[in-house]
Amino acid sequence: MKRMLSLVVTTAALLLALPASAQFAKPEDAIKYRKSALTVMGTHWARLAGMAQGRIPYDAKAAADNAAVLEVAHKLPWAAFGADTQSGDTKAKSEIWKEPAKFKEAEERLFAEVPKIVAAARSGKQDDLKAAFAAGGGVCKNCHDNFRQ
Amino acid sequence: MKRMLSLVVTTAALLLALPASAQFAKPEDAIKYRKSALTVMGTHWARLAGMAQGRIPYDAKAAADNAAVLEVAHKLPWAAFGADTQSGDTKAKSEIWKEPAKFKEAEERLFAEVPKIVAAARSGKQDDLKAAFAAGGGVCKNCHDNFRQ
Repeated sequence: MKRMLSLVVTTAALLLALPASAQFAKPEDAIKYRKSALTVMGTHWARLAGMAQGRIPYDAKAAADNAAVLEVAHKLPWAAFGADTQSGDTKAKSEIWKEPAKFKEAEERLFAEVPKIVAAARSGKQDDLKAAFAAGGGVCKNCHDNFRQ
Repeated sequence: MKRMLSLVVTTAALLLALPASAQFAKPEDAIKYRKSALTVMGTHWARLAGMAQGRIPYDAKAAADNAAVLEVAHKLPWAAFGADTQSGDTKAKSEIWKEPAKFKEAEERLFAEVPKIVAAARSGKQDDLKAAFAAGGGVCKNCHDNFRQ
């Protein structure tokens, strides 16, 4: 029983020690992946923002299509900021790893705003999209200002 | 009436002349976007392939999660291969634009295989995933061999 407990504790400790980036073979793979996911996310975000603000003609189908990508893409980059990915071909600031609670808070703010923007994009009403971006549109800039060089 | 018809014809001609990449401000934006979308797609594809082939421990929840990303991501790169994106920071072969029917066929083959892989990943059975990759796993290589330097 003692041995079993020891095994459980050891396994749990090992799991906790695994960086989130353990799913990437090399740190540079994680960096490439998170930059790619951010590019995809940013492209579809920008199209929705453009439609919300009238820079791109509003189209309900296009809004819903972009929202469907944003809904999946916004969750992807964050697991690729493991402790072993601080240097390399990246503009990530060291604050990400020095202030993990603050970085997590920025992630959670994004996770709170995106579903509102997605719902507004699916409503088929440009005014809903405009209101959603007026309320939550600053969430990218907030994170970039603090955590991107 | 004649003037109206002329306007309709002119508008239709303009729409047809618009490259698919018109949604990107610059050709280099389209190239960056499609490379990013392919990286995201390829990462989640590789995780599913790894689980199918036993290189990564099979986990039903992880399989379903990766499938959800693949389902969205595999549709993204193709609109970013507009006529104005043939040169630049890209490994795309000129065959993409010289043989558009063949490229379209490769795209359609992907669109036929991915839903089967996604369904297999959602079944919760490793054997289903293995069978889906045995049948359709060559679809990436097929396109890379023909259209990527």
